[in-house]
Amino acid sequence: MRQDAIAILGGTGDQGLGLALRFAKAGRPVVIGSRKLERAEEAAAKVRQEVPDGDVEGRTNEDAAARAPIVILSIPFEHFASTVKRIRDKLAEGQIVVSMGVPLATAIGDGAVRTVGIWQGSCAELVKTLVPDGVQVVSAFQNVSAHRLQHLAEEVECDVLVSGARAPRERVMALCALVPGLRAVDAGPLANARIVEQITALLIGLNVRYEVPEGLGIRIAGLPAGNSGA
Amino acid sequence: MRQDAIAILGGTGDQGLGLALRFAKAGRPVVIGSRKLERAEEAAAKVRQEVPDGDVEGRTNEDAAARAPIVILSIPFEHFASTVKRIRDKLAEGQIVVSMGVPLATAIGDGAVRTVGIWQGSCAELVKTLVPDGVQVVSAFQNVSAHRLQHLAEEVECDVLVSGARAPRERVMALCALVPGLRAVDAGPLANARIVEQITALLIGLNVRYEVPEGLGIRIAGLPAGNSGA
Repeated sequence: MRQDAIAILGGTGDQGLGLALRFAKAGRPVVIGSRKLERAEEAAAKVRQEVPDGDVEGRTNEDAAARAPIVILSIPFEHFASTVKRIRDKLAEGQIVVSMGVPLATAIGDGAVRTVGIWQGSCAELVKTLVPDGVQVVSAFQNVSAHRLQHLAEEVECDVLVSGARAPRERVMALCALVPGLRAVDAGPLANARIVEQITALLIGLNVRYEVPEGLGIRIAGLPAGNSGA
Repeated sequence: MRQDAIAILGGTGDQGLGLALRFAKAGRPVVIGSRKLERAEEAAAKVRQEVPDGDVEGRTNEDAAARAPIVILSIPFEHFASTVKRIRDKLAEGQIVVSMGVPLATAIGDGAVRTVGIWQGSCAELVKTLVPDGVQVVSAFQNVSAHRLQHLAEEVECDVLVSGARAPRERVMALCALVPGLRAVDAGPLANARIVEQITALLIGLNVRYEVPEGLGIRIAGLPAGNSGA
């Protein structure tokens, strides 16, 4: 396992692919995971096309999960629990799993501007109940526009509200500095994912009402200058 | 009832007083409501001290509710339902009630960085079930710092996410233009108050972690220029 590698499960989807592009462009080794190996390899080839010197490989989700100290879950909410159950045996103590999940009501055939309730409180807290002891869970990146991530020439104007236990949270906050425009904001304990995940549904509604297909972001106003809390 | 008047129930509290100051300074007649008449009159006197030509009066909540087409509820969550029940007979068809309420867990003796669940979905939706037919309910102003509202010399850097039915929502959005720095954002139907109210608890946690006692705000990033949706 390379210590600077980042695994992105569901890296074939819009948001996961966007993060893969940005992290590869920043010079970090990226492992894209997918249920099917060939789809992961296709996504890796797409990233290399945009970032010719990028260090990117495609793997099955199970393989990808074992190949990086930080494993980002960028998968539709309805596949979250089953995916975590499928990779849990590959996870080892000290690894960090990052939940980008948002319980959009699309999971039950309703709209993306609403959410469903989760017994554990949030998608991130659901993940926390499923990973082995010693594996840390952090919530981040839910509010970042997939479209803006994929447009490498432009900055991504968005704050990333990162929540979880202090040490892993700070490691995930440091990843935000790899993407021009992103700013990490210390959103405290993992339970705050309950609020952060909901904001995505609000932003999706705003994207529609204001006709901004590229996707809006969120900024916390009034933070001390230069302070990303990391 | 003067058509340009704004009533603020709980206008003796920090946030309500801040809005009273700002609206008075913008030249709008303001009616401050409180449970006790003398406390309302004291608050009105405070506003006149800061805004000498302000048109401000203090009334009981019941009287204040009948004296303006827009009635803003700026009261602690634990007193919301009882206050609305007490004023409901004073409300008439066509009036707009604005809920600033946030179900902070302080209502049950827990902390302000968490919320309690509301059966109706949000404080604003709870209010909606209590007002007479024909009275409109709009959710707004929850995320605006009381401290920043009260400092008249400075702009209030914050977006106001306004939700409710279209016509009353647009009337409340127009109020935001009275306060320098505030920008109204069209947050769609009233049910979105479920998300907007939660953001206040998140901001309170951020105020503590980043040591910003003046209070942080929120901005939606990427909105079309000059577009407040009103």
